[in-house]
Amino acid sequence: MEIGKIIGNVWATRKDPILNGMTFLIAELDDGKKIVVCDSIGAGVGDRVIITKGSGARKNLNTSSLPIDAVTIGIIDEKEEK
Amino acid sequence: MEIGKIIGNVWATRKDPILNGMTFLIAELDDGKKIVVCDSIGAGVGDRVIITKGSGARKNLNTSSLPIDAVTIGIIDEKEEK
Amino acid sequence: MEIGKIIGNVWATRKDPILNGMTFLIAELDDGKKIVVCDSIGAGVGDRVIITKGSGARKNLNTSSLPIDAVTIGIIDEKEEK
Amino acid sequence: MEIGKIIGNVWATRKDPILNGMTFLIAELDDGKKIVVCDSIGAGVGDRVIITKGSGARKNLNTSSLPIDAVTIGIIDEKEEK
Amino acid sequence: MEIGKIIGNVWATRKDPILNGMTFLIAELDDGKKIVVCDSIGAGVGDRVIITKGSGARKNLNTSSLPIDAVTIGIIDEKEEK
Repeated sequence: MEIGKIIGNVWATRKDPILNGMTFLIAELDDGKKIVVCDSIGAGVGDRVIITKGSGARKNLNTSSLPIDAVTIGIIDEKEEK
Repeated sequence: MEIGKIIGNVWATRKDPILNGMTFLIAELDDGKKIVVCDSIGAGVGDRVIITKGSGARKNLNTSSLPIDAVTIGIIDEKEEK
Repeated sequence: MEIGKIIGNVWATRKDPILNGMTFLIAELDDGKKIVVCDSIGAGVGDRVIITKGSGARKNLNTSSLPIDAVTIGIIDEKEEK
Repeated sequence: MEIGKIIGNVWATRKDPILNGMTFLIAELDDGKKIVVCDSIGAGVGDRVIITKGSGARKNLNTSSLPIDAVTIGIIDEKEEK
Repeated sequence: MEIGKIIGNVWATRKDPILNGMTFLIAELDDGKKIVVCDSIGAGVGDRVIITKGSGARKNLNTSSLPIDAVTIGIIDEKEEK
């Protein structure tokens, strides 16, 4: 997984209808790259999150059948590097 | 997912027959990389879109059995970064 | 998907037997990276092709059970960027 | 797979509930990139590990239904390059 | 797929038990990156091989249920670029 900081939102009125109701957030990864993630845990701007990419992003009750490839799985409380 | 801008089209007469009727667009990602995406939402040149890559690109009624790895899932109305 | 140019061939006598009969081509991607792709459409050296990577490379009648991760899905006739 | 060194831990109280009880470690890959991995083998800070990414990270009794994309599969005893 | 040269071995006594008996090799890709691959074809140090990554690495009789993401599928006899 990767650690990212939620820095914004993105809205799309014209979209695959199965995505209605999903929240799309912009996350900045540690290398500066910005990606779009679906939110499954109530994350918002300013939160540092753990992001799962690929098919793992659909192993969640709310996202299992969606055409997505990135999801927030946790909001980071604390990180410790040695 | 990634944000890209649709900048062109690509045509292939000789292709896997299961792809007949699909539209192939050229999208430029934020890092300048150009990829080919299938369109599922009526996107065209000039639109900024959300792109799903990998197996998620086939979680769509129109693309589920296709040999593709990237699809447009939404046309961006507005993007807000803080 | 990515656009690549077929620039060569690669042969492997000792291989997973399920791959017998498959053609392996060398494709150069737009960023100069060279990858090996299976061919499903009769592509050859000099052709510009659309390449699907990952599990999508096995969504084809001829490749569905193969241990591969890249396949040609179309030979490009024309590309138009605006 | 990739080789990484476990350099830290990350904690998330608010997370997908299916992840309760999983250990999240920070691994530094050979190219300096840091990723978050689930642990399936008792790895800890200081261990050099083999990391599987993508859907393969869920081919483990403990991780098969989790929204994750990276897991430790072995702690390296010895590595020999020629 | 990618072309790599087998340059070493890696051993892990503490590992997911389902991996017992698998050989882990170190492969150097054309861009200099080193990855760990499972061997399914009897490859050894010095061989140039074709490597399949991702879920395709498990489309092999010996690897279908393993938590791996890269496998050797062929030992290269000859490569011809034009």
